[in-house]
Amino acid sequence: MEVHKVVPPPHKSSFQKVKARLKETFFPDDPIRQFKGQPWKQKLVLGAQYVFPILQWGPNYTLKLLKSDIVSGLTIASLAIPQGISYAKLANLPPIVGLYSSFVPPLVYAVLGSSRDLAVGPVSIASLIMGSMLRQEVSPSKDPLLFLQLAFSSTFFAGLFQASLGILRLGFIIDFLSKATLIGFMAGAAIIVSLQQLKALLGITNFTKQMGLVPVLSSVFHRTNEWSWQTILMGFCFLVMLLVARHVSMRKPKLFWVSAGAPLASVILSTLLVFAFKAQHHGISVIGKLQEGLNPPSWNMLHFHGSHLGLVMRTGLITGIISLTEGIAVGRTFAALKNYQVDGNKEMIAIGMMNMVGSSTSCYVTTGAFSRSAVNHNAGAKTAVSNIIMAVTVMVTLLFLMPLFQYTPNVVLGAIIVTAVIGLIDVPAAYCIWKIDKFDFLVMLCAFFGVIFISVQEGLAIAVGLSIFKVLLQITRPKTVTLGNIPGTNIYRNLHQYKEAARVPGFLILSIEAPINFANTTYLNERILRWIEEYEAEEGTKKPSGLRFLILDLSAVSAIDTSGVSLFKDLRKLVLVNPLGEVMEKLQRADEADDLSRPDCLFLTVGEAVASLLSIVKGQSSSHV
Amino acid sequence: MEVHKVVPPPHKSSFQKVKARLKETFFPDDPIRQFKGQPWKQKLVLGAQYVFPILQWGPNYTLKLLKSDIVSGLTIASLAIPQGISYAKLANLPPIVGLYSSFVPPLVYAVLGSSRDLAVGPVSIASLIMGSMLRQEVSPSKDPLLFLQLAFSSTFFAGLFQASLGILRLGFIIDFLSKATLIGFMAGAAIIVSLQQLKALLGITNFTKQMGLVPVLSSVFHRTNEWSWQTILMGFCFLVMLLVARHVSMRKPKLFWVSAGAPLASVILSTLLVFAFKAQHHGISVIGKLQEGLNPPSWNMLHFHGSHLGLVMRTGLITGIISLTEGIAVGRTFAALKNYQVDGNKEMIAIGMMNMVGSSTSCYVTTGAFSRSAVNHNAGAKTAVSNIIMAVTVMVTLLFLMPLFQYTPNVVLGAIIVTAVIGLIDVPAAYCIWKIDKFDFLVMLCAFFGVIFISVQEGLAIAVGLSIFKVLLQITRPKTVTLGNIPGTNIYRNLHQYKEAARVPGFLILSIEAPINFANTTYLNERILRWIEEYEAEEGTKKPSGLRFLILDLSAVSAIDTSGVSLFKDLRKLVLVNPLGEVMEKLQRADEADDLSRPDCLFLTVGEAVASLLSIVKGQSSSHV
Repeated sequence: MEVHKVVPPPHKSSFQKVKARLKETFFPDDPIRQFKGQPWKQKLVLGAQYVFPILQWGPNYTLKLLKSDIVSGLTIASLAIPQGISYAKLANLPPIVGLYSSFVPPLVYAVLGSSRDLAVGPVSIASLIMGSMLRQEVSPSKDPLLFLQLAFSSTFFAGLFQASLGILRLGFIIDFLSKATLIGFMAGAAIIVSLQQLKALLGITNFTKQMGLVPVLSSVFHRTNEWSWQTILMGFCFLVMLLVARHVSMRKPKLFWVSAGAPLASVILSTLLVFAFKAQHHGISVIGKLQEGLNPPSWNMLHFHGSHLGLVMRTGLITGIISLTEGIAVGRTFAALKNYQVDGNKEMIAIGMMNMVGSSTSCYVTTGAFSRSAVNHNAGAKTAVSNIIMAVTVMVTLLFLMPLFQYTPNVVLGAIIVTAVIGLIDVPAAYCIWKIDKFDFLVMLCAFFGVIFISVQEGLAIAVGLSIFKVLLQITRPKTVTLGNIPGTNIYRNLHQYKEAARVPGFLILSIEAPINFANTTYLNERILRWIEEYEAEEGTKKPSGLRFLILDLSAVSAIDTSGVSLFKDLRKLVLVNPLGEVMEKLQRADEADDLSRPDCLFLTVGEAVASLLSIVKGQSSSHV
Repeated sequence: MEVHKVVPPPHKSSFQKVKARLKETFFPDDPIRQFKGQPWKQKLVLGAQYVFPILQWGPNYTLKLLKSDIVSGLTIASLAIPQGISYAKLANLPPIVGLYSSFVPPLVYAVLGSSRDLAVGPVSIASLIMGSMLRQEVSPSKDPLLFLQLAFSSTFFAGLFQASLGILRLGFIIDFLSKATLIGFMAGAAIIVSLQQLKALLGITNFTKQMGLVPVLSSVFHRTNEWSWQTILMGFCFLVMLLVARHVSMRKPKLFWVSAGAPLASVILSTLLVFAFKAQHHGISVIGKLQEGLNPPSWNMLHFHGSHLGLVMRTGLITGIISLTEGIAVGRTFAALKNYQVDGNKEMIAIGMMNMVGSSTSCYVTTGAFSRSAVNHNAGAKTAVSNIIMAVTVMVTLLFLMPLFQYTPNVVLGAIIVTAVIGLIDVPAAYCIWKIDKFDFLVMLCAFFGVIFISVQEGLAIAVGLSIFKVLLQITRPKTVTLGNIPGTNIYRNLHQYKEAARVPGFLILSIEAPINFANTTYLNERILRWIEEYEAEEGTKKPSGLRFLILDLSAVSAIDTSGVSLFKDLRKLVLVNPLGEVMEKLQRADEADDLSRPDCLFLTVGEAVASLLSIVKGQSSSHV
């Protein structure tokens, strides 16, 4: 029988290895690949196209594409205007800042961004977090100017942080927000946001400043005397109308324009109603006068020192991560649908730049919004030009249409927000997680209840901590399974999973299913000794020979460290099977004194190991005779 | 050709799975195994023996064992007395506390501990950490009583924490101190401790209160006027003597008594010298009067509230973890040498109990000491009775011999400490780490320089953080390798490692070498797409057919989560090979809509997958003809 040798991978110097590792960590997409072997001029063109994706698709832009983009651009504008006003109120900012934020950032993104479907603008969760975090130190009602300055400064830091993540190619940090964490977090945030809207929907004037479930509900039920029946009636009607529109569009995606147009229709209808019935004198609060004109510059309002700097940086960091996660996830989702690639790190730079530019033109934090991008996609957006159309529409509104919003009732904005965020509660996805992985479900629940009962930031931190803890626990307690031979083959598989697999007498074959490192060496040592004990307790009574060989299948051990190498030193009668490249290399280097890498202890497959060792045993016993 | 089916593991309810997971996490050693199937009375006996290991070996104790234990007990006592006094001074405590701590804790350990070689008493690093941490808030010279109370309270919390880790079976937490971290930390601490001894060795009276390398050296060289030549001469002579003794014992382990007896000999010799020459009047500082008598009770000195509680708990936590690590490591090392088992969690309870009892009998934190246990082992210790002998010897000293230490010079104690801690600098182990794993070496350097230049706690925290970061990075960027067929076999192995392995035309066979989870799903998706692109760029020009099948070998994927399951949904022409139990189960559960678990997408080995798919392809092309 032929026995194949286990060989280490070809020699590489430490420098080469570090280089390869760094490349795989920071440049897994190998961005300079396309530049290789190109002439100098072509490299320049490619470089410019890399930095400004608009140069890539711009030259091929056609009138046909423009038609689609105009339709989708106008559609998302009709959604962006009421949502912009609503979300700015959610962040405790003047409503007009929401419109400013729907004008400049989409233009910046159209030049720098690589997604064709992303609809850029303010989003509910980032608005909520920014509003609630800044309110910890500054009151938006008592000191509105300072609050506004802090909001712009936080936006600047959010953008700086986002762009740095992209430039330093540390984008994988957002991967630590797992799907389960995000689903729980979104649902919790949706509930917190909806609860905040009770202020507008019930017409309460003295509402709590806190965000948690308990203080909000107690505030609602301790102020029943402030409830206004006119507001409640109006809110209820429009909420039902918006929810029905949303339901229709979800049932028939072709009718996307029903839910896309509903918010603007509600705003127009309710404004007309208030104007006609002079309802502002009957307990229905309205937005009031808004100033006209485009974004004023705001770079002189940014705070880079002073007592609130810590708060501003913290707020920037958290809103930055959260809005980045939303933007990247949206970009990737639609790129996968249309089968094109979105470069995560480039997107981060685009979103970061758009926020940095935004912070100096009176915009607060923006990103690609889930709901608006879906509408954009359904409306047939072909390129980022739809963002430009939207921005132009918002510009026209800012210049000429602002007085029309004077009588828009706040209750309708509340209804728009509730309808938008209700879609963030994804019960089927939660059920799916429950079905697949109970621990992920626990992480989701922690994120959900953490956000509702403690705070948005801490709920998120708990969920992320728990996800990482799970991964560490998997490493600390790796699985070891016993393998058996599948009759009639050379295949060895888990005895517990494959009932037909059979033990080979005299052999204990274990497979270790994790990298071996400091965190699990002690455990593995104890666990293997227990396997041997159990084996001897079971088999030892039947045969006097007992355990002849311990075979460790290392096919699933992807890495090993110095602590791990010492594991094999204490074990006796040990045979190793299929150590992978890195493991083989380290065993060899650790091995000047020991014999682990001598050929009769190392085999390429379990089958070959068993066959060789059995022939050795037979040879011995026949020579004894 | 026969094709084997992939099956999921037998069904278990979620409750059973959680139970199995919890058992593997907290009871990997299955402590109740021995109780199974025993009669009721026997169970009681076994239970008592489990709690008090002395009941296990005590009944079989013989006179022959006692002889060995007396020799080793007296040997370690001769080491424990001078070291106890020295280490107490290192912790800024009265010297006699070091002797108290060598009396009660060894007795407690003898009853509860399961190691036969551990020599219990105060140790250098824990003393150093306790002294330096408590000194942050309270000055040992200005307020010695409060300092002593805080030391006892910290010891209590250290013991409580250690015992809790054992009772809650969370002992794996100390595994996170990897070998590399410990080697760097120990070496750094040894240097810090040695530098502190310059005060005694040079006879400086106004020494800095800080621990770092820079302030200590600047203090030494700014106070050259305080250097005392008599002290330096004496210190130099005894240091050389102790180092020579240590060297002799290291060369010839049979002469262990040379280094074991040297400290006591130095103390006696130097005391006689001082007494004879009245050297205390010539610039040589001596210990001075020590009170006689056994440990006074100290439970009324424990602080459970007040302004220093936070410091005390923090100090207890850190000294507790560090001393536990030393104790457990020593226990395991000698158990492996003599081939018996030490139960980590039981040891933690024993060490914790001994510190809690110690804290109420005027002892500070103790554990099993590396150097003293080695001497104990070499001197032929057979059971924990050698600890009892040592304790009795210390008791005799406390009762009758204390006045003899009045003239012992501090410089000799400094020399004893330096000689003891110099052995903690393990250069060969550091070289071995450099050879095996460069990243581990970096962790070691961080621990070393962190301890020297920043502080003991922060150096440790940096090294632990870096070790965990490395593990997380491995998970975030798992290796994917392309497999090829080893000619003439059914074996598929890494193309890069095995040069003879050959690609199968039309197939891209990838192996993923890590659990698939939220932290790496995005990366894996991008990386696999890049493999496909590269494959098509290379092969696509040669053959018009291009890529027919993508085979993912999941043999090394030990676990998967909900994010991971979604990875397979976007890939086309996908065939999965050998998903392990848990992975198979989750794929099946996620799979009501998808087709991943249909038989023609799932194979047990790569060989079978390639053979079946090739026959399908041939069947198609022949039917086309």
